[in-house]
Amino acid sequence: MRSELQWVRRIREMARRFAPEIVMGIGDDAAILKRSPGKWWLVTTDALIEGVHFRREYTPARLLGHKALVVNLSDIAAMGGRPRFFVLSLAVPGDLEDAYLEGLLEGIVATADRYAVILIGGNLAASPLGLSVHVTLIGECAAHRAVRRDGAMPGEAIYVTGQLGLSALGLRLLDAGYRLSDELPEHLRRPILAHLAPEPRLSLAQYLAEEGVARAMIDLSDGLSSDLRRLCEESHVGAVLRAEALPVVAEASALGADPLTLALHGGEDYELLFTVREEHTPCLEEARMRFPDLPLTCIGRTISDPGQVYLEHAGHREPLAPRGYNHFSLRYD
Amino acid sequence: MRSELQWVRRIREMARRFAPEIVMGIGDDAAILKRSPGKWWLVTTDALIEGVHFRREYTPARLLGHKALVVNLSDIAAMGGRPRFFVLSLAVPGDLEDAYLEGLLEGIVATADRYAVILIGGNLAASPLGLSVHVTLIGECAAHRAVRRDGAMPGEAIYVTGQLGLSALGLRLLDAGYRLSDELPEHLRRPILAHLAPEPRLSLAQYLAEEGVARAMIDLSDGLSSDLRRLCEESHVGAVLRAEALPVVAEASALGADPLTLALHGGEDYELLFTVREEHTPCLEEARMRFPDLPLTCIGRTISDPGQVYLEHAGHREPLAPRGYNHFSLRYD
Repeated sequence: MRSELQWVRRIREMARRFAPEIVMGIGDDAAILKRSPGKWWLVTTDALIEGVHFRREYTPARLLGHKALVVNLSDIAAMGGRPRFFVLSLAVPGDLEDAYLEGLLEGIVATADRYAVILIGGNLAASPLGLSVHVTLIGECAAHRAVRRDGAMPGEAIYVTGQLGLSALGLRLLDAGYRLSDELPEHLRRPILAHLAPEPRLSLAQYLAEEGVARAMIDLSDGLSSDLRRLCEESHVGAVLRAEALPVVAEASALGADPLTLALHGGEDYELLFTVREEHTPCLEEARMRFPDLPLTCIGRTISDPGQVYLEHAGHREPLAPRGYNHFSLRYD
Repeated sequence: MRSELQWVRRIREMARRFAPEIVMGIGDDAAILKRSPGKWWLVTTDALIEGVHFRREYTPARLLGHKALVVNLSDIAAMGGRPRFFVLSLAVPGDLEDAYLEGLLEGIVATADRYAVILIGGNLAASPLGLSVHVTLIGECAAHRAVRRDGAMPGEAIYVTGQLGLSALGLRLLDAGYRLSDELPEHLRRPILAHLAPEPRLSLAQYLAEEGVARAMIDLSDGLSSDLRRLCEESHVGAVLRAEALPVVAEASALGADPLTLALHGGEDYELLFTVREEHTPCLEEARMRFPDLPLTCIGRTISDPGQVYLEHAGHREPLAPRGYNHFSLRYD
């Protein structure tokens, strides 16, 4: 069977068409459509599927609703856009309790309110096995202000928000039997919440887009090694990461996981990865003042070697292969 | 467990919010958003789920792709709109052959080209069991020209396109073991094709909307008895159907099915149901000349009894309960 990436390439090749409204079709975090003079619309779709992206036994209903929206909000964030409207397509198994579906919907609506997005339509169908939540989100941005994956040039600094690998650590803890509860100590609660209830980095992303600071941007859904490679391929640049600079989750060691591996290949952090030209680095100080709770870390730089990603570690530089959890083949690559 | 209808009501109640761009949120075939002065956008989402809406064993891959798009195109037709762009969210089981997925995508793209809609984005995920195809479609229409479900007044004529019950007959034949093949006689091929490969009534619907002929419109996805009731409830009118006037599939009798039952309660015909004021009936003659291959039949009239639907049959009038295949509970109501 072809891999997810091969299928995405195939679909992109099959479906390439032109229309005056299309600024960008398949190939970025969201499609870009011209809405009216001075305004663009951004369209993205993503899904959470039971047994693939979550298990019901460890996922509180409200958090599932929250996350189903967040994975889409994060795509709009990665374009520097403002989310506005969404539709929901639910596949509901016969064994689902009314209370779970009610909680899921409450979680979606509460998060929608928090980020000022509005549910405008949906579809409800039975599912022979397993719950799935498909969301399509429409956002907006000023014309020519969307930050795409293909805008990076060689010699730019590469930044990430937050900590990397926290969500993957949370997933390992859930798989090991830990559950969210009031008694859960903070060092376990924090990674589990990062996995079950990530937050989209919308405000910072909008600032970076509006000020023209980010030249290329993507959200970290599949893991740094995969998502950075995507950004590099689209931008026809390469990248060198400095292992020592990565904002790893140091406490992972005590829990039996390697912080560097989690940071490089762990997925679902929904942090932002973006490149910045040298002359714009002062703007990042402004960003740090505006968003003091969100770490911003320079983890490397772009180079002119298209599509190649390297890791510098303890004085050595070696190629970094894309890995991470592959939701398509249900395994770690 | 709550019924699909109860959940839709619940979601509509939970999610009611206002924004200057929203003309119509949840509650019609598509949401309506103001795009720019003089233009509205229409947004709809629908899904085909294996084991609920289709079985792979009798569904050629290309026709599945076609139908996944058509069920959404039909929603845009029901608003009188012109479809433009769509995104695709696929859940793909591990046992799916590459050739089937390739055929599905070819079918989607071929039908997209035929109706001038463009795939602008998507999402591909694994599925633990069964293939599902979720589509979100964006269409457009001139401002104030969308035909809603809630525009009917008492005393209007009720029309349908095509024949009713043909798709349900096709499903019965498929369930009985008939398959599409070159040897299949025409009287079996026609209903099976109606089920596997319906066509959206876009051109006629656009004509009806642009000329202001249709006052309220809905597409027949769940069956006449259910969909007419929805239109009546939204419009706060009632309806009287004349059984003798229904464009039934007469040959169903010879195949062991009751033509009237199929016409009243069979789903997935994707024909249009709309109401017309007396003074506009001459326009229907024009419509018949423009679309000579598509039957247009007057099947009854609206009355002032809100939400009540009656069937006149052999001189008797009795209430008509909504029935039809319920995809949510996986049974015929």
